[in-house]
Amino acid sequence: MERNWEPLASLRANGARFWETVERSAQIGVGRPGGLCRLALSDADREMRDVFVGWCREAGLAVSVDRVGNIFGRRRARRPELAPVLLGSHLDTQANGGRFDGIVGVLAALEVVRTLDEHRIETERPIEICSWTNEEGARFSPPMVASGAFAGAYAVDWVLGRRDDEGNGLGDELARIGYAGTAPVGHAVDSYFELHIEQGPELDARQIPVGVVTHGYTTHGFIVEVSGETAHSGPWPMDRRRNALVGAAMLACAVNDIGWRYHATQGKATAARLVAWPNKPGILSDWAQLTADVRHDSPEVADRMAEEFLAAVADCARRSNTEMKVLERWSWRPHFFAPELVALVRQTAHALGYPTLDLASQAGHDAYFLARVAPTAMIFSPCTGGITHNHREHATLEATLPALNVLLHCALSRAGQASA
Amino acid sequence: MERNWEPLASLRANGARFWETVERSAQIGVGRPGGLCRLALSDADREMRDVFVGWCREAGLAVSVDRVGNIFGRRRARRPELAPVLLGSHLDTQANGGRFDGIVGVLAALEVVRTLDEHRIETERPIEICSWTNEEGARFSPPMVASGAFAGAYAVDWVLGRRDDEGNGLGDELARIGYAGTAPVGHAVDSYFELHIEQGPELDARQIPVGVVTHGYTTHGFIVEVSGETAHSGPWPMDRRRNALVGAAMLACAVNDIGWRYHATQGKATAARLVAWPNKPGILSDWAQLTADVRHDSPEVADRMAEEFLAAVADCARRSNTEMKVLERWSWRPHFFAPELVALVRQTAHALGYPTLDLASQAGHDAYFLARVAPTAMIFSPCTGGITHNHREHATLEATLPALNVLLHCALSRAGQASA
Repeated sequence: MERNWEPLASLRANGARFWETVERSAQIGVGRPGGLCRLALSDADREMRDVFVGWCREAGLAVSVDRVGNIFGRRRARRPELAPVLLGSHLDTQANGGRFDGIVGVLAALEVVRTLDEHRIETERPIEICSWTNEEGARFSPPMVASGAFAGAYAVDWVLGRRDDEGNGLGDELARIGYAGTAPVGHAVDSYFELHIEQGPELDARQIPVGVVTHGYTTHGFIVEVSGETAHSGPWPMDRRRNALVGAAMLACAVNDIGWRYHATQGKATAARLVAWPNKPGILSDWAQLTADVRHDSPEVADRMAEEFLAAVADCARRSNTEMKVLERWSWRPHFFAPELVALVRQTAHALGYPTLDLASQAGHDAYFLARVAPTAMIFSPCTGGITHNHREHATLEATLPALNVLLHCALSRAGQASA
Repeated sequence: MERNWEPLASLRANGARFWETVERSAQIGVGRPGGLCRLALSDADREMRDVFVGWCREAGLAVSVDRVGNIFGRRRARRPELAPVLLGSHLDTQANGGRFDGIVGVLAALEVVRTLDEHRIETERPIEICSWTNEEGARFSPPMVASGAFAGAYAVDWVLGRRDDEGNGLGDELARIGYAGTAPVGHAVDSYFELHIEQGPELDARQIPVGVVTHGYTTHGFIVEVSGETAHSGPWPMDRRRNALVGAAMLACAVNDIGWRYHATQGKATAARLVAWPNKPGILSDWAQLTADVRHDSPEVADRMAEEFLAAVADCARRSNTEMKVLERWSWRPHFFAPELVALVRQTAHALGYPTLDLASQAGHDAYFLARVAPTAMIFSPCTGGITHNHREHATLEATLPALNVLLHCALSRAGQASA
């Protein structure tokens, strides 16, 4: 896969064209001023998918949609039988999401293809671009469920059976928006590259344009169900109460405390979602659910945090006189990306004249699942102040373009320029 | 208002007829097995109101509905210009409500009228029966909002503007179900009697049929809004987090702790409702709301509990790095019912041969507001195990009939049998 740098050293993506697609995306599923609310498989997600598929078709890509709604667009190559170099990310957002998280990765992949087309560059190996379904997990839990299925970590039927807060099934919603595809889930991939905004402050603070992601934080996520008993808020004595809302609140506080205990080594723990029933004035709740996660750079420490969480479940159940059960649990342990690809990202950036910073990713990414089935690397671009999952999330073309050019040249390196 | 007991001493309500109405009510808005889910101004509430109004009309009562949807049925009397003796309670339930809470009070009032009709007993003063709108406060906060308006404690427009969790206005929902009445809110009342299940274990445990309610617990209710900032559950450092969900959870735990601190003197404190936004996996919430209340037999102690709650609001805001604001606050301080009516209830029960127990009410009741504008008393009937606001709430005709007969004779005493 050696490559002669010279002929293409000056090749650069078209920043203006790339940014136009980012701005078009920013009009679909508009949330709070400046932000997006484009939950997976919503009408807005459908509209974005339609636009993206249109762009893929215009670029002459062979579009396929697999059974969990992942969209792929494959470019012609000299040797189409070879496994493709895959570039992608996700187009769904949080309820209070930004305009860049995930999106710039998918649209950068599109721009790579457009740039190669414009310069009539043919590759030996196909380049394929993709958008993963429900990366955020904001609508269907857990996150990264569709890249997980692609990598064989989750069964397809289990993924299709995931339900949102209103009880809608992921599979039914895929069908509703016209993205219940027929392609098998999972196919051979030579390598996977994902460009993503850092979602942390380092690159922006240090004015370094390219983050080389060496690995990701280990994460353990949980959904805990709390069972109690309804009773009257007035006469029912404190020592007979089994208020599921109080049990879940105790656990939310305990999770937060775990985060603080590991704050010195940048551990994080989050109480993300709490629902209860009846959750009404005048009555104690007999059911609640808490969604929480713990994260740490060290897998061993993350495991310890998870143990502390499970101990807190038992302790909070006892103190609130409720029963608690871990309904679901998920983990990512992306402790290393493929060294040869990480090195390729770093070398490519340097060859293009961009300073780099080695970083660990603290957020979840589809790349973690792809790393199970193919050599994988991530490229981070700066985001202002590290603010993300917030309508004030901000990135500029100027700050993103270096990472895009790194993606372009990494893809080209890996796909191999066809000899003329 | 002196009355000769002898001629009517043997008058008794028709238990079978009364219980038939209770069982009919139990078919409307069926919830979990054995229970009801008949939230205020729901379709089920409309159906129950229609049935109740039908019964009132069959009994020859003059039916009126006031602007906040309270339903009144007034019986003819020798001197119709006199203020009526009012008997009532409520027909709405909690989301996991029982079949007796509120309901037996309204239907007992109906049975009083039917019994008097059956025995062709005319009274000097009119007897009026009523069902109050949204007593539970399960759908529109705060509770007892319509009896509060009747008593002048709440402005009518403010009541009509209350919104449920979906944003529907109380006034709009009244119109939707056809109960936006035109009668002015509030009218002269001679006295008010409310029969209600105890919602506590004492009468059932001691096998005493009639509870004489001397007064109610002082209650302070609060809705607290928590403001934070969304951010990513992964990279965002613990010391910069402003997770509104964590703030609300801390406050829920603090409320529960206040209850325990006063448990020895039967104080209660409840975290009843917690909502957050976006309340999704992967993101910190920037908004939350907690509904809570504190209750104590001693008004002074209840005030102290409220102060501790407000101190907890400040403390939890500081610890969770959020802002907290008390959006709404309500109080009941029903420290005494009218001594002459309380004595009348007790004496009437004894005259009928029923043992009594003096009790404080720990739940909220419309009677608290009526007590501001008229001499008021409550009569408690037993409920099995004190279980209430639960589908397992249970009462029997046998256990309820004594209280019903006390209500009948109290009403007759106060209304005055017309001389033949």
